[in-house]
Amino acid sequence: MKKERLRIALAQINPVVGDLKGNSDKVIAWMKKAVGLGADIVSFPELITTGYPPEDLLLKSNFIADNIQELERICRNATDIVAVVGFADQAKKGLYNAAAVAARAKVRGVYHKVYLPNYGVFDEKRYFAAGKDFPVFAIGRTAFGVNICEDIWHLEGPAGVQAYKGARLIININASPYHMGKGLMREKILKAQAKKNNVFISYVNLVGGQDELVFDGQSLVIDDKGRVIARAKAFAEELLVIDVDLKECPRKSKIFLGGISPDKTKLAGPSVAAAKEETGEVYHALVLGLKDYIFKNNFKKAVLGLSGGIDSSLVATLAVDAIGAKNIVGVSMPSAYTSQESKEDAQRLARNLGIEFQTVPIQEIVDKYLEFLKAAFAGKAPDVTEENLQARVRGNILMALSNKFGYLALNTGNKSEVSCGYCTLYGDMAGGFGVIKDVPKMLVYKLAEFKNKKEGREVIPARVFEKAPTAELRVNQKDSDSLPEYVVLDKALKLYVEEDMSLTDMVRSGILPDVANTVVRLVDSNEYKRRQAPPGIKITPKAFGKDRRMPITNRYR
Amino acid sequence: MKKERLRIALAQINPVVGDLKGNSDKVIAWMKKAVGLGADIVSFPELITTGYPPEDLLLKSNFIADNIQELERICRNATDIVAVVGFADQAKKGLYNAAAVAARAKVRGVYHKVYLPNYGVFDEKRYFAAGKDFPVFAIGRTAFGVNICEDIWHLEGPAGVQAYKGARLIININASPYHMGKGLMREKILKAQAKKNNVFISYVNLVGGQDELVFDGQSLVIDDKGRVIARAKAFAEELLVIDVDLKECPRKSKIFLGGISPDKTKLAGPSVAAAKEETGEVYHALVLGLKDYIFKNNFKKAVLGLSGGIDSSLVATLAVDAIGAKNIVGVSMPSAYTSQESKEDAQRLARNLGIEFQTVPIQEIVDKYLEFLKAAFAGKAPDVTEENLQARVRGNILMALSNKFGYLALNTGNKSEVSCGYCTLYGDMAGGFGVIKDVPKMLVYKLAEFKNKKEGREVIPARVFEKAPTAELRVNQKDSDSLPEYVVLDKALKLYVEEDMSLTDMVRSGILPDVANTVVRLVDSNEYKRRQAPPGIKITPKAFGKDRRMPITNRYR
Repeated sequence: MKKERLRIALAQINPVVGDLKGNSDKVIAWMKKAVGLGADIVSFPELITTGYPPEDLLLKSNFIADNIQELERICRNATDIVAVVGFADQAKKGLYNAAAVAARAKVRGVYHKVYLPNYGVFDEKRYFAAGKDFPVFAIGRTAFGVNICEDIWHLEGPAGVQAYKGARLIININASPYHMGKGLMREKILKAQAKKNNVFISYVNLVGGQDELVFDGQSLVIDDKGRVIARAKAFAEELLVIDVDLKECPRKSKIFLGGISPDKTKLAGPSVAAAKEETGEVYHALVLGLKDYIFKNNFKKAVLGLSGGIDSSLVATLAVDAIGAKNIVGVSMPSAYTSQESKEDAQRLARNLGIEFQTVPIQEIVDKYLEFLKAAFAGKAPDVTEENLQARVRGNILMALSNKFGYLALNTGNKSEVSCGYCTLYGDMAGGFGVIKDVPKMLVYKLAEFKNKKEGREVIPARVFEKAPTAELRVNQKDSDSLPEYVVLDKALKLYVEEDMSLTDMVRSGILPDVANTVVRLVDSNEYKRRQAPPGIKITPKAFGKDRRMPITNRYR
Repeated sequence: MKKERLRIALAQINPVVGDLKGNSDKVIAWMKKAVGLGADIVSFPELITTGYPPEDLLLKSNFIADNIQELERICRNATDIVAVVGFADQAKKGLYNAAAVAARAKVRGVYHKVYLPNYGVFDEKRYFAAGKDFPVFAIGRTAFGVNICEDIWHLEGPAGVQAYKGARLIININASPYHMGKGLMREKILKAQAKKNNVFISYVNLVGGQDELVFDGQSLVIDDKGRVIARAKAFAEELLVIDVDLKECPRKSKIFLGGISPDKTKLAGPSVAAAKEETGEVYHALVLGLKDYIFKNNFKKAVLGLSGGIDSSLVATLAVDAIGAKNIVGVSMPSAYTSQESKEDAQRLARNLGIEFQTVPIQEIVDKYLEFLKAAFAGKAPDVTEENLQARVRGNILMALSNKFGYLALNTGNKSEVSCGYCTLYGDMAGGFGVIKDVPKMLVYKLAEFKNKKEGREVIPARVFEKAPTAELRVNQKDSDSLPEYVVLDKALKLYVEEDMSLTDMVRSGILPDVANTVVRLVDSNEYKRRQAPPGIKITPKAFGKDRRMPITNRYR
């Protein structure tokens, strides 16, 4: 059978939710780039006009109308190329998560997403009706089908029907958020789809941070034998272009889009970016998630407390990599319980990173509170109240700097402490963005090591790794006074939070009954704190936030 | 045609989410009460074993297994009555929002909810598969169908099929949360269903508070002419019992449950509770929502700041009605900007309510902060930073009292200020529960008036109503310096937040362009604050929280 050589481009771009005009301008610009490289087809991610996820903006009729107007503008610009563009389509039967296929300056067909994810962080059934049609498009003497994200995860889904109808290539457009291990999962299912249906698959993914989600890109082209023949970079924009040789197919009952461009510049060898090692991948996910949260929300600089501990050291390092050392302010806020070492380590870290460093001691402020609370507290022994007060004074100082200078206040709480409520509401839980909110403590150490190794020097001082974790809110306090050792705790938390295991099953999986009991009790009783936590970047299969929707009032044990 | 007299009971009860055993014990106790009153059938609300909404507890397999075990225990107790009981049913094809029909100590049939709400506060498609069967049950010589909540809102839904199959009565079980005007909406649709299908409808609703939701009860029995023949009280538990005369119907292809109890005690005349006037209804919704949040979370006492303003005055009043004056602590926290009148009004309110009253002045604490921030703030003029600091010192004091004594800290922010971000994160936004978070400012006044009128005295001092709203965070500050007048603001907010109107449509609806612009800008740019707000009671058609899911990063204007 004869083959037709098609040049396909995958535009892995970074939109901003709600910026309909800006996103569409970017689509048009990248479409022109693809034309310049001689591509026959260019595909853009899911809902690229609106950004993903647009959430309840989709309930505003003017938002939908404006997105359709922008889609039409994009399509008018598709003069010398076929473009596949994600948008929200208002049809008679409802709103659809859709892909327009444009050619010769017009929309030639629209595909409606069939499988609407409504689990984890996804709420697509809240907004969209499910599609039922499986159009196939002819280009030159070959054909392709289009579908959207989740559609490709179903082996019995649209790709099979489209292949049956003659499609040699499936263009799947995505907004698939990152979590550890997601890349491998995707490749596995795409390979299975390609082999099962004997089709090439072009998988274009969104890239960029949007509130709690990071989209990692890593767009892929898989051949009809299930082999990865192109892979775009992770966590960066890229126009991935590759030539694919597709079998011919009869044009019957397909939507004809036009011929294939006969004269093409020669293409450099296929670009296959290496997949990142896991810790490095998480590190870059956090940097991009933070950077996009800051800039997309029009902040220029960020402030954070530096305690001399591993969490704030890592967050400062990530922040420097995200927006540059000159835009970060670190604040040491020592109390009577702060050790000399902690003060030194905070200062050394700031020096190593080259960030601005300030010191605002809190003891006198704390004492002033206690003076005025003396009457109310009469007869009561000191307890966690006095500890929380210190944390809250620090929270107030950071917020005061944030308010006065327009800095974003970065929160430095990790997933282990957020899980157990080992943190103070409005204290160390204050801040606009929880950079490592979904990073368990043991992974915090690994990420810090990764950074030092990458830089080939101790950016984060060695002593920060060595000392026992402590909140320094009373004399000789250690985290391990209140919590199981982190290596044990993190294992238990993974089973309980991410895998929804019962206490019995946790014990069966090797967690000591005492530890399992403590973990279940702490996680369950601190839902109220998490409800008021700042948003933070999802990097595990189940993060707190939209991913895990637990009642506060809950007597299930 | 002959008729059969059936005595039906509707158990409008208040469960606790996750308390599988406690809820089931209550179901069994109320079932016995119904037997004692000679009822043939008793129905319990939707998902009564688990409480509603159980949210992601439904993703735990042990939770589902435990709920089924409790359901079976309930059904073993259904010896002398037919019981309709909501639970979560694990079937081969998935998890279902289900109603078991038990008789003679066994489950005789199970109905699976067909219409799964996945809008507003609801996420049912996240958990449940949709039912497809419409069983009808025979009792004596007549028959009834069972369906669940949303099912009855669809005129072409299950009730029609069940009526066609011979059902003379539809037992619809509910967990229908309150908002203003919901009762009327429900009666309207139920009347239409009854008339259309020529059936009696027994509508049992949940009662009680669960985090941000309040279930109002107001269970109903409608006859086959569409007339309300019984109505249970709002915001209280009640066993509503009524005799209905149903036409006979052939027993063919129905699940036979047994005969009708022949000897019944005489029943008092039908109980038709009067519907409450709207302001009173909201008042009682807030009291119940607050009470249940406090007690279901095992708090005994609550603390709040008293500024002498209308918001804190109303919240204190609601709190007293919820858990009693002896369990409320009011705290005045004056600064240099607090007027003598405000101090007096706070104290007078506390005296009127008979609650504990404390004073903790904040000025010296604020000054101490400013002393230590002086270097950092060098060369900067005072601005909103210093205002926020005062609010945060107050937040810290309330939280210190909460921590030291185990009080729940009540938040006193209203919907108008939460909408506009006219509030300080971790400051006046601190607290475990936002009692009037969904109450617009003008309604705050109405509720306060309602209370004074009801008591026949000025519980809330007259001067509190008369003075111009002010945050008292700088000299001569008035809310109207920063916001449109509340009467205008509330109208604009309703259009923008509750009705998702565009700016153009707001202006077309009579909002001045300046006001509309301000409102849209303020609401959009303060999403980040609301994300960290405490939970609060929904009383409008669209509350902040699960009801309105907006991205923080959002450039749509």
